Amino acid sequence: MTVSKQFDIIGFDADDTLWESEDGFRANELRFVELVSSYAPNGIDVKAALTATERKNLNTFGYGVKSFAISMVEAAITISSGSVPTDVLAELIEMARAQLEEPVHMLPHVPEVLATVGAAYRLVLITKGDLVHQTHKIETSGLAHHFEELEIVLEKDSETYLRLLGRLKVEPDRFLMVGNSVRSDILPVMALGGHGVHVPYHLLWDLEHVEHNELFVELKSLGDLPIWLGLA
Amino acid sequence: MTVSKQFDIIGFDADDTLWESEDGFRANELRFVELVSSYAPNGIDVKAALTATERKNLNTFGYGVKSFAISMVEAAITISSGSVPTDVLAELIEMARAQLEEPVHMLPHVPEVLATVGAAYRLVLITKGDLVHQTHKIETSGLAHHFEELEIVLEKDSETYLRLLGRLKVEPDRFLMVGNSVRSDILPVMALGGHGVHVPYHLLWDLEHVEHNELFVELKSLGDLPIWLGLA
Repeated sequence: MTVSKQFDIIGFDADDTLWESEDGFRANELRFVELVSSYAPNGIDVKAALTATERKNLNTFGYGVKSFAISMVEAAITISSGSVPTDVLAELIEMARAQLEEPVHMLPHVPEVLATVGAAYRLVLITKGDLVHQTHKIETSGLAHHFEELEIVLEKDSETYLRLLGRLKVEPDRFLMVGNSVRSDILPVMALGGHGVHVPYHLLWDLEHVEHNELFVELKSLGDLPIWLGLA
Repeated sequence: MTVSKQFDIIGFDADDTLWESEDGFRANELRFVELVSSYAPNGIDVKAALTATERKNLNTFGYGVKSFAISMVEAAITISSGSVPTDVLAELIEMARAQLEEPVHMLPHVPEVLATVGAAYRLVLITKGDLVHQTHKIETSGLAHHFEELEIVLEKDSETYLRLLGRLKVEPDRFLMVGNSVRSDILPVMALGGHGVHVPYHLLWDLEHVEHNELFVELKSLGDLPIWLGLA
């Protein structure tokens, strides 16, 4: 049996698709709540205030750990009306530094899946977030050689995908994107006439939540991708 | 007279080559010294301590304003042994936010030079720094259409240039890089057998200073580039 190829290029998201990411943010968010709550007046939702600060800062500071660090410092000062001790603020910065220096924790099946799928398709990696952090993760993961291009973008919207597909000289309907975020990996690609395969992760950042009525393929694990593609 | 083209692609640096950048860092550095000095013991070189913190953080946090913001907060706490008031730290974050939101201040001759040179050559923009900040500056400057590619990279070293030139399918000896930093724009390109034109800016960040014995072309102003290329 021959399988005719439905796609010219397959794009992979990175954070929470190839390796753990949200876990580090959640752990630091919990630690933030522990550290800052005792300096906040009763009735303050410390976690909600941090998320609101992140949302407010997103356009100016962008995605990623450095932006998160700045939002933590800012939110701690605001929530506590300035009463938070400076050693707590120093600890928030150290938490961000540790998060940036943490080794990559690869998700199950990733190396085998990239080897199998990469033998049959051209692969690109498309991620947003912090330039230095994403570059370090891609390089230290040992996975970079599977990808024809490594794209670290500001926002994963339809405009960005259209620009990338133009550069790769591939039509949207011949492009498949694989990732854990419906908002960033699936909907903007489908809006162009492209295809998405959703592989949910057990954690999703509040700012990635999206309401929608679209239908698309959802796999329980990245390990199921070769079967779905007819490669195994 | 016909002029045979010596280059296939010309790369331009962005910060302090196309628009002002170091001015914003210097202004905030001065303001940092003003704000923090009264909480530092006598005998502390506040400015030097900030620069040392930036140097220490460079590998983990990378280049750009967010990294600078985190270094300012960290240095202020360290220098003052934690005695700096939290409202000063909040002001340091606001200074970074203002720097990120500041409109682009284009340098003289930039639009004309890009129009003239871009009519004869393929142009690419190659910059390091913060992804969100650089993207916003490129987009709001109205200059993006002159460039075939906009590359925001982690480090402007020979390895990075080699990867970019490979992707652009241009031989190093057919590539010219134009920029204000000998360390980042000229020496790594020359090391590959490529060409560099240095256009100094009146300010240079401490961490961009480099000792060298190389000889290369230096222009007083970007406005001289078309003449040097034989285009005017």
